[in-house]
Amino acid sequence: MMRTIIVHVEDKPGVLARVVSLFRRRGYNIESLTVGHSARPGVSRITLVVEADEDAARRIEANVYKLVNVLLVEDITGEAAVVREMALIKVKADPARRAEILQLGDVFRARAVDVAATSLVFEITGTQDKIDGLLDVLAPYGVLEMVRTGALAMTRGAEAVPEVIAA
Amino acid sequence: MMRTIIVHVEDKPGVLARVVSLFRRRGYNIESLTVGHSARPGVSRITLVVEADEDAARRIEANVYKLVNVLLVEDITGEAAVVREMALIKVKADPARRAEILQLGDVFRARAVDVAATSLVFEITGTQDKIDGLLDVLAPYGVLEMVRTGALAMTRGAEAVPEVIAA
Repeated sequence: MMRTIIVHVEDKPGVLARVVSLFRRRGYNIESLTVGHSARPGVSRITLVVEADEDAARRIEANVYKLVNVLLVEDITGEAAVVREMALIKVKADPARRAEILQLGDVFRARAVDVAATSLVFEITGTQDKIDGLLDVLAPYGVLEMVRTGALAMTRGAEAVPEVIAA
Repeated sequence: MMRTIIVHVEDKPGVLARVVSLFRRRGYNIESLTVGHSARPGVSRITLVVEADEDAARRIEANVYKLVNVLLVEDITGEAAVVREMALIKVKADPARRAEILQLGDVFRARAVDVAATSLVFEITGTQDKIDGLLDVLAPYGVLEMVRTGALAMTRGAEAVPEVIAA
């Protein structure tokens, strides 16, 4: 099954390469990976979605912990969490069909962030399914280009945040 | 200066590790990295922001091209482009201050995606500056946790999309 793993790391050169290489060497395929700053200066947060069973996930977790500059590993699979992706989608849109396409975007709460003579760019956030849904309805018009992030994940509620990642 | 580079790759195990390792070996620090699906099945898109001058960037580009499974490298620095990040921000919010905090979110067009007894989670998209701005106004309330993507980038307008990445 797909597991969502959050790795909190010190913001040092090479740490991302080490984490990615470890998954690769162990033969896990990374379905999605997102890395960016956390609330704490000097700490980055890597969100990984990988295909693994519970047993394998526990082994990965232990191995990632051993890496230099890794502060905390959380497997949040099955926990109540907010999981969101973002995508930018460039779709063909002649003036005659623009209103129709913008209306479809509205239904999905997508925002038009660029409108050109014959195309427009939507920004959409949400679950993977929601983004796939918008892509499906836009497909007949001609999707020119698309880029999406992997999943970002955060547990719900205000349970104590581990000290290493607190701001 | 910060350069934004888009690398289109075949969706094969190890390709992400190779790209990341190349930047690391050459001594470039990756400011942000986002990887996800593109409009074309089997093709992923890596958006990198790195600190490099134009000369260094040209050398990186040439070297990344040589890697197995790399289809296209675009340096879009200085081109008209949509560049957006997404963040999830968990902030302390007692019932008494909730309305006030939600109002601040509105100003930044952030969406409340989870509300718990003493905290809430905002989703925000936009430029790095906009997200930093929201973080600044939320700081006095107590930011419990934050996760953000790197930049997603797409050139504006409907110029011909290279065939390797067209849907």
